[in-house]
Amino acid sequence: MSTSHLHPFDAALALASSAAGLYTGHTSPAYWNMVGPFGGITAATLLQAVMQHPDRLGEPLSLTVNYAGALAEGPFTLQATPVRTNRSTQHWTLSILQPDAEGAPVVTTTATAVTAARRETWGVGDMPMPSVPAPAQCKRITPAFRSEWLQRYEMRPVSGALPEQWDGSGDTSLSQLWLRDAPERPLDFCALAAMADIFFPRVWLRRARQVPAGTVSITVYFHAGSDLLATTGSGYLLGQARAQEFRNGFFDQTAQLWNEAGTMLATSHQVVYFKE
Amino acid sequence: MSTSHLHPFDAALALASSAAGLYTGHTSPAYWNMVGPFGGITAATLLQAVMQHPDRLGEPLSLTVNYAGALAEGPFTLQATPVRTNRSTQHWTLSILQPDAEGAPVVTTTATAVTAARRETWGVGDMPMPSVPAPAQCKRITPAFRSEWLQRYEMRPVSGALPEQWDGSGDTSLSQLWLRDAPERPLDFCALAAMADIFFPRVWLRRARQVPAGTVSITVYFHAGSDLLATTGSGYLLGQARAQEFRNGFFDQTAQLWNEAGTMLATSHQVVYFKE
Repeated sequence: MSTSHLHPFDAALALASSAAGLYTGHTSPAYWNMVGPFGGITAATLLQAVMQHPDRLGEPLSLTVNYAGALAEGPFTLQATPVRTNRSTQHWTLSILQPDAEGAPVVTTTATAVTAARRETWGVGDMPMPSVPAPAQCKRITPAFRSEWLQRYEMRPVSGALPEQWDGSGDTSLSQLWLRDAPERPLDFCALAAMADIFFPRVWLRRARQVPAGTVSITVYFHAGSDLLATTGSGYLLGQARAQEFRNGFFDQTAQLWNEAGTMLATSHQVVYFKE
Repeated sequence: MSTSHLHPFDAALALASSAAGLYTGHTSPAYWNMVGPFGGITAATLLQAVMQHPDRLGEPLSLTVNYAGALAEGPFTLQATPVRTNRSTQHWTLSILQPDAEGAPVVTTTATAVTAARRETWGVGDMPMPSVPAPAQCKRITPAFRSEWLQRYEMRPVSGALPEQWDGSGDTSLSQLWLRDAPERPLDFCALAAMADIFFPRVWLRRARQVPAGTVSITVYFHAGSDLLATTGSGYLLGQARAQEFRNGFFDQTAQLWNEAGTMLATSHQVVYFKE
């Protein structure tokens, strides 16, 4: 399989299927983080397995990914099982496995997902997009540290960028930024899942200290259907993230993603490990 | 097994184990909702299986429960598997099964959980408890409709109670209320998981229309350790919930639970189905 002409995101998400629900893939150097893949690319890969499953009904509604252990560089196995299909929702369980030193399969990641049939109903946004300067008015930043995956996104911070000095002076956990794939790529559910994990650990901002930190579990709720994703295309999204509580080595962060027209595409939450 | 002297919550959570990770239980009439158990009691029961598992390490950090189908009145089987144990976190997959009309086991509920070792670290609350009147100043309400589980909680709304008139006049999705078990019961992780689901569907408040609605997936992040739960005892919790986006038959709601001293115990999020 040639992936040379693919967008790096599509190359990273390439899966081969040997049976319904059983896939093999390979970690992507283009989305490498410090000790494993960017968590967002792992979430996107799990969702990709659902999207490619021959029995899938409906579009993504929710995705929860639990990072049980770092994926090692190399191939992996992914299992996606539709455990129950209802009239309007379908429930999935997923896992990623890699062999340990003795070759025995070890779970690196567990996940659940729900796909659903979207219907025309009453609707309203109850969390309006904040009023911020347009993307062109916000300067594009170059990655502040050497994680390859940071090169895969165009980021234009509005507020709450990485501290310039790690001096313990932080007083907020709120970040807002314009973002999109680099190079540009039309938005789909997998890309949206990845973008929900784009925010650096809130503890870095709140403390102005770059302590070791890593996502333990993330949940993404998809409010957009495929028609809204198509309308959004390769435009900028506004991402917003903040923490609620830091305690005893863990904190949570909540996030929202709107398109430039101000329509909510996804909301997300995660719980993150941090080291003192 | 006699459960006659147990608190109804403990009676509802009674599980018998025939092998490590394999449990049988029975739905509880005391926590019955409209067409199945109160979602919070199902979440608590899943967490109870983790708490009672002989291989458990650490305390609950996160719990995600996916309501694939309503539990029928009667016995059920619960499977809890620690799929990976790390130095400070342990990852669980869970499911509840009931026989279908032909006796074949059907998944009603899937879940994942993470337990973790809590350590002394820096910490801060970044979502302070709102300033509200004390519990004694807020009138206890009697349940507005006939779901048995509502009798199991003392609720003292501060704001955003159920609309008195279902006239389509809603303009907010925010609710705040003081709550505790009825009768009183010292707080534990399972009770906290259940309380995270106590909020009525935000669509009822936002629309002032009581349309059919049901939780599809809920996630709870536990910020409290067992010492903080012990300190909280049987005191009141302040619960707060609001929606972020309603669209195409689904909406999300976010929630926070503080103890009366203003310490955050848990944050939670759910995605909910609603019918036009």
